[in-house]
Amino acid sequence: MRMPELRVLGVDPGLTRCGVGAVRGRPGAPLDLIGVGVVRTPAEDDIGARLVVIEAELERWLDEVKPDAVAVERVFAQHNVRTVMGTAQASAVAIVCAARRGLPVALHTPSEVKASITGNGNADKKQVGTMVTRLLRLDAMPKPADAADALALAICHVWRGGVQNRLADALARSRGAASVAMAAGYRHSPPGRTGDRTRP
Amino acid sequence: MRMPELRVLGVDPGLTRCGVGAVRGRPGAPLDLIGVGVVRTPAEDDIGARLVVIEAELERWLDEVKPDAVAVERVFAQHNVRTVMGTAQASAVAIVCAARRGLPVALHTPSEVKASITGNGNADKKQVGTMVTRLLRLDAMPKPADAADALALAICHVWRGGVQNRLADALARSRGAASVAMAAGYRHSPPGRTGDRTRP
Repeated sequence: MRMPELRVLGVDPGLTRCGVGAVRGRPGAPLDLIGVGVVRTPAEDDIGARLVVIEAELERWLDEVKPDAVAVERVFAQHNVRTVMGTAQASAVAIVCAARRGLPVALHTPSEVKASITGNGNADKKQVGTMVTRLLRLDAMPKPADAADALALAICHVWRGGVQNRLADALARSRGAASVAMAAGYRHSPPGRTGDRTRP
Repeated sequence: MRMPELRVLGVDPGLTRCGVGAVRGRPGAPLDLIGVGVVRTPAEDDIGARLVVIEAELERWLDEVKPDAVAVERVFAQHNVRTVMGTAQASAVAIVCAARRGLPVALHTPSEVKASITGNGNADKKQVGTMVTRLLRLDAMPKPADAADALALAICHVWRGGVQNRLADALARSRGAASVAMAAGYRHSPPGRTGDRTRP
């Protein structure tokens, strides 16, 4: 049985640059780019004004892409203390925008995404960008890196997603919660890619 | 010239317990309680479902209280790494709810609030709760501590706010930004309270 096509919006959260990238596809089949971009907000603006801009832009992306799921980079407090609060706040806006539409929200760690896309959880930005360019058959690597990272998140989720999300979604509905699903492990890997962890 | 009365909604952000408290008043005059409560979300729920509940409840508070400003506790990455990400995400929801209504958003650090309410930036929860109870002429201390902390934030902002917010607001408008104002220092202190810092 062939899995249905999945449209996934990936979000690499950040206040200064929030990468957004959308792909469609299914595990084991060629992927297609829907769109890619970056939402920028000026560092001199108030946090409130910045989050409102990010929310408005993400709403526009959700309206246009009409994704089946949203994949957001999982933020850890341990990483880069200087910027982590802004990253966490931008990620909250992305999560709430998706969840209040009833869309499944998946959080993937950077190493999960790198392992999924390149086979190496410690791959550098250039490797990830190169693989994103190749997998989506693009003429040039998406710039800035945040845009490529958002596409990598979306690709990772297409390859990992689908079955788990619908399962988690059904579980969430069955216990009366909002229909928000988290990627809680996966069974499918793209051919030739192994060694990824399901949980950090 | 007497300053106009200010209605302030204070938010002590958190995923498990998000304290919410509203007061009205002006510097140098008795304060009145508008309302106080706590938004709880189950730890076993997905982050998306939890943030959606917090957003919906804060929207209800904003509708009912109709505040002139919202005061949110400023979160630092250095504090309590285990819970800081959830706190940052809940704070982002509070900030974006206020900012997209065009309300001024003020971020106060815990030590600013404690110094403002008790005269001591290192005051403990009980001291803060005692002063909140006294200042609002309540019969009992608001429980849980998150609820009392939210009221303390709102009181702090009434005492510090007003002039600065309108100034920051005018500045924000004059440079064409969204009308979101941050408390960027203050000139007014309640009588007999000194030694507070304007910036962490």
